Amino acid sequence: MGYGSDPLTQEVTDRLRDVFEAPDAAVHLVATGTSANALALATMIAPWQTVFCHRHAHIEEDECGAPEFFTGGAKLVPLDGADGRIDPALLSKRLEMASPAVHQVQKGVLSLTNLTERGTRYSVAQIAELSAIAKAHAVPVHLDGARFANALVAEGCSPAEMTWKAGVDAVSFGGTKNGLLAVEAVILFDPDKARDFEFRRKRGGHLVSKHRFLAAQMAAYLDGDLWLSLATQANAMAERLETGLREAGVQLMHPRGGNMLFVEWPQRVQKTLQKAGAVFYGAPVHGRDPEAANGCMARLVTSWSTTEDQVDRFLAALGHPD
Amino acid sequence: MGYGSDPLTQEVTDRLRDVFEAPDAAVHLVATGTSANALALATMIAPWQTVFCHRHAHIEEDECGAPEFFTGGAKLVPLDGADGRIDPALLSKRLEMASPAVHQVQKGVLSLTNLTERGTRYSVAQIAELSAIAKAHAVPVHLDGARFANALVAEGCSPAEMTWKAGVDAVSFGGTKNGLLAVEAVILFDPDKARDFEFRRKRGGHLVSKHRFLAAQMAAYLDGDLWLSLATQANAMAERLETGLREAGVQLMHPRGGNMLFVEWPQRVQKTLQKAGAVFYGAPVHGRDPEAANGCMARLVTSWSTTEDQVDRFLAALGHPD
Amino acid sequence: MGYGSDPLTQEVTDRLRDVFEAPDAAVHLVATGTSANALALATMIAPWQTVFCHRHAHIEEDECGAPEFFTGGAKLVPLDGADGRIDPALLSKRLEMASPAVHQVQKGVLSLTNLTERGTRYSVAQIAELSAIAKAHAVPVHLDGARFANALVAEGCSPAEMTWKAGVDAVSFGGTKNGLLAVEAVILFDPDKARDFEFRRKRGGHLVSKHRFLAAQMAAYLDGDLWLSLATQANAMAERLETGLREAGVQLMHPRGGNMLFVEWPQRVQKTLQKAGAVFYGAPVHGRDPEAANGCMARLVTSWSTTEDQVDRFLAALGHPD
Amino acid sequence: MGYGSDPLTQEVTDRLRDVFEAPDAAVHLVATGTSANALALATMIAPWQTVFCHRHAHIEEDECGAPEFFTGGAKLVPLDGADGRIDPALLSKRLEMASPAVHQVQKGVLSLTNLTERGTRYSVAQIAELSAIAKAHAVPVHLDGARFANALVAEGCSPAEMTWKAGVDAVSFGGTKNGLLAVEAVILFDPDKARDFEFRRKRGGHLVSKHRFLAAQMAAYLDGDLWLSLATQANAMAERLETGLREAGVQLMHPRGGNMLFVEWPQRVQKTLQKAGAVFYGAPVHGRDPEAANGCMARLVTSWSTTEDQVDRFLAALGHPD
Repeated sequence: MGYGSDPLTQEVTDRLRDVFEAPDAAVHLVATGTSANALALATMIAPWQTVFCHRHAHIEEDECGAPEFFTGGAKLVPLDGADGRIDPALLSKRLEMASPAVHQVQKGVLSLTNLTERGTRYSVAQIAELSAIAKAHAVPVHLDGARFANALVAEGCSPAEMTWKAGVDAVSFGGTKNGLLAVEAVILFDPDKARDFEFRRKRGGHLVSKHRFLAAQMAAYLDGDLWLSLATQANAMAERLETGLREAGVQLMHPRGGNMLFVEWPQRVQKTLQKAGAVFYGAPVHGRDPEAANGCMARLVTSWSTTEDQVDRFLAALGHPD
Repeated sequence: MGYGSDPLTQEVTDRLRDVFEAPDAAVHLVATGTSANALALATMIAPWQTVFCHRHAHIEEDECGAPEFFTGGAKLVPLDGADGRIDPALLSKRLEMASPAVHQVQKGVLSLTNLTERGTRYSVAQIAELSAIAKAHAVPVHLDGARFANALVAEGCSPAEMTWKAGVDAVSFGGTKNGLLAVEAVILFDPDKARDFEFRRKRGGHLVSKHRFLAAQMAAYLDGDLWLSLATQANAMAERLETGLREAGVQLMHPRGGNMLFVEWPQRVQKTLQKAGAVFYGAPVHGRDPEAANGCMARLVTSWSTTEDQVDRFLAALGHPD
Repeated sequence: MGYGSDPLTQEVTDRLRDVFEAPDAAVHLVATGTSANALALATMIAPWQTVFCHRHAHIEEDECGAPEFFTGGAKLVPLDGADGRIDPALLSKRLEMASPAVHQVQKGVLSLTNLTERGTRYSVAQIAELSAIAKAHAVPVHLDGARFANALVAEGCSPAEMTWKAGVDAVSFGGTKNGLLAVEAVILFDPDKARDFEFRRKRGGHLVSKHRFLAAQMAAYLDGDLWLSLATQANAMAERLETGLREAGVQLMHPRGGNMLFVEWPQRVQKTLQKAGAVFYGAPVHGRDPEAANGCMARLVTSWSTTEDQVDRFLAALGHPD
Repeated sequence: MGYGSDPLTQEVTDRLRDVFEAPDAAVHLVATGTSANALALATMIAPWQTVFCHRHAHIEEDECGAPEFFTGGAKLVPLDGADGRIDPALLSKRLEMASPAVHQVQKGVLSLTNLTERGTRYSVAQIAELSAIAKAHAVPVHLDGARFANALVAEGCSPAEMTWKAGVDAVSFGGTKNGLLAVEAVILFDPDKARDFEFRRKRGGHLVSKHRFLAAQMAAYLDGDLWLSLATQANAMAERLETGLREAGVQLMHPRGGNMLFVEWPQRVQKTLQKAGAVFYGAPVHGRDPEAANGCMARLVTSWSTTEDQVDRFLAALGHPD
């Protein structure tokens, strides 16, 4: 009863179909977000097709070419857009200009990320707008939902509304960043893709033999809507943090969509905070004076385990940086 | 401190170097045996090279082409040999006949499996003999050690003796089949390969973000030589099973190397046992009468959790099949 | 008007459709036999599928892994069979034993070679028999026709009879080995595959810009059935050679199917012939005394340009080797 | 004596080494520019590395992903720069910002194109500047020389000066666009890469059996410096055309580097010219009124076979488009 044929895997599969109101969807678990994305994309396109994504998408910047590897060498087409969201006008233009000639790579799939890599959020309407543009060119849509739960509770909609009802064909439904050890679910609303996905997963070394240990994590995640509670807590702590940062006069780089904030400050602020025990990613901005007011950027992420006290201590350590 | 930069991962790395008496070895954890094998092999050869392996090797028969995928299309060369062990004379011949011409795929790597896929064991001397043949042709050696612990305690040698002292260059050191949830370590005795491996692992979606949960499993596995105790128990139960099977007149297909036995019997015996609650893989043999004495084959595996009572109940249910 | 959009390419396409009595077939020209085979196979299967072929097929032994490269890592399954022809019983058995499970590579395509790599020929009935076995398992059939013309005139049938009427789905229709500089046509009887093929060809660097120079060769080849005349001449010279060899007591290794003969003789015979100016491939047989009667093998190929005088001089130089 | 082992291939190899003053260089012929580029790049980098190139490079825009296919999924990084030439400051910045972390694709190779895809030319000094930037980051340099001869005679330097003396490590030396049927030479100044290249070429289906027919074209190309005469003629005709276009008030989009001009004009001008028999690529510019002064762009290419009379007739047909 290994490799996903166990009853717990079947149960979790059914529950995820319920969650997404998609009784026919194909549901597969994997252990990493990179494999979820790369396998989903490879299932959706041919090697000579493209993946349209934001310039700062995880698949473009942080997966060491996994999408290229799994697709057999497809080309990612990075698109601009403020605050980590693809500009619909740019997507339109790229799709209109795409050539059907054999010399050019062909229109493939649109991949959105929600929450975005800049901590912002696509609204359901924005997803629907971009999907509609894609669909008008027969281009399917993938959603990288590493932070799906955070986007969902912030948006206050249902999983179906954020996905297939808005034109999304496949979702990488993240669990790891919202409290699980290492589980993501790939949900394909077109079940005809399921068999292809399964061969790619096995061939990619991503079919776990004691699969029930993946399923068990996902089962706990769904029990009593734990996944939503965890995301609600993370978002609330981010809101608290945002309020404090604004009061302290810190410059937020992008509007907050969920549990992730990007700020700019001088390097000394970063050092002060890290000395006080805060753990976050921060770096000097290329080409600027590190001690300028915008000399460093930092990425502040709250989680299900973040407490009010932690936020308050962070803000206390921050003081009034200027 | 994600992605393997945590202290527990460092600790486990050091301990595995100690276990293998290889202070410079590169050690990497992954979650599946298929990824361990495929990543190791891809690191060792070019796409136009070959992997010499037994006809029934896991990489040849049970990984849905993962080695081909990760190597960029290398060719597996299946070799015959009794009881799941490669015939040294055949390996010699294939290596001698390998052409250096550009029209032919080129000699690449030798991959051994211990325990073999037929439940037998390569002795240290046999590994050394095959490695020496390979090395005479400048061909490095990989060891698929999904059941490394079972082979080791049965052979009664040290990890170093079974690997680099016998000419092995890289090992897939299995944990999952010996009690872990999902962890295998890839040990490369040539540390120059480490960086290449790391990019392949990330790109393959096999770098787990909360890596400490892989490391924690491996740490527990090594604590107090638990891994050896688990394998010792599994092997002892297989020995007890073997004794009982022989007394019952059951035909063993291959000599037992550790914790896995292959037998032939009529289909009715298989059904009797499964009805009594025994769980094992069994199937009719292609082209034979299922009710003949050799009509079905079965693969009987004991584990760290198998008890004497379970073995005895299995044997009692078996009775005297003829 | 480059890249195949020229009138001559269109004309040649239409003429090949006529030759094969296949008005809807997709026809594409490439410059090498290896690319013709690899592109055709890649168009027919998924990366996790297999190519069933004879153990000595060109795709298995002489293309440096091109099929693996173009298919994205498919697995070639070499099958035995006397005289370079696949044994139908073996093919049947392999197809029956193929597992649909996700752990195993999946049944893909059957690739036949006519003339075979041993200089023999599949009759139309033999092709039909193998195709029928494949089709019963939903496996399509590819024909490597590097020596298609030689097989055809020897068999005395029509191109349609040797291909789609006998169950063949795609043909690599060779020109280079029968007098052209460097042109092969890939004919796909299922035109739905055409677009896929075209992207693979371009992406593989095999779409020639001044495509009319490929088409011009093929046009000349078809004019007045030149291709059949060339093959007829080559076959006649091989027949003359065979007669002489038999009279001289030379051992033929396989029955002659067209314009290629395999013989065994002592190395001194080979040296005598090559000293007299004969050009052919010959080599000592691994594991035998080179001066034994069967110590060396040689591959004797006649061509469209071989003359009776050349054959007679070869036979004269041969004398009576024993 | 097939597959490049013929004397003519050896002769041509030696002559190209002389032409490039590189006695140790590896020289290989292929039939298409796409294969020359893709094979060279694949030989220079690992699959997880990048190819830095201009946004409008042929490898980025016109090869249907061939570099991705041959490299095993490397990522092309398109860079901006006026007139088809990479902006050195941008290249510097990208290289400085490249991360060595395992999450990111790694710095690979710089690929320049001369003449550029906009018909301009890198001077030797500009090549040297970009190469020096790359080399400071241990990044090797490839030159796509599909129009190498046109660039060379316009620049008035030696092949060595334009390549290895300016830091170039590998060249795709074009023949097809300068009069040959279908031949390009790949010249690797590091001969250690030769063997790797040869396996990739064979495996890619690009090793032509009757290789002497490729070599014969290249021999004729080099005889009496024919290749330089052909390019000189093409460039002279482009200069004549440029003069006439300027006199007619036509807007040139980029400075002329050799034998290719880009212009903007209303669609009616394009139609007038094409009606008069002129053959060129022209298209409406996305988002503009086709009949505006800059409504259409056209790419005007002269060749070795272009005559003064043809140019003059083109200019006469053009008239004074306003």
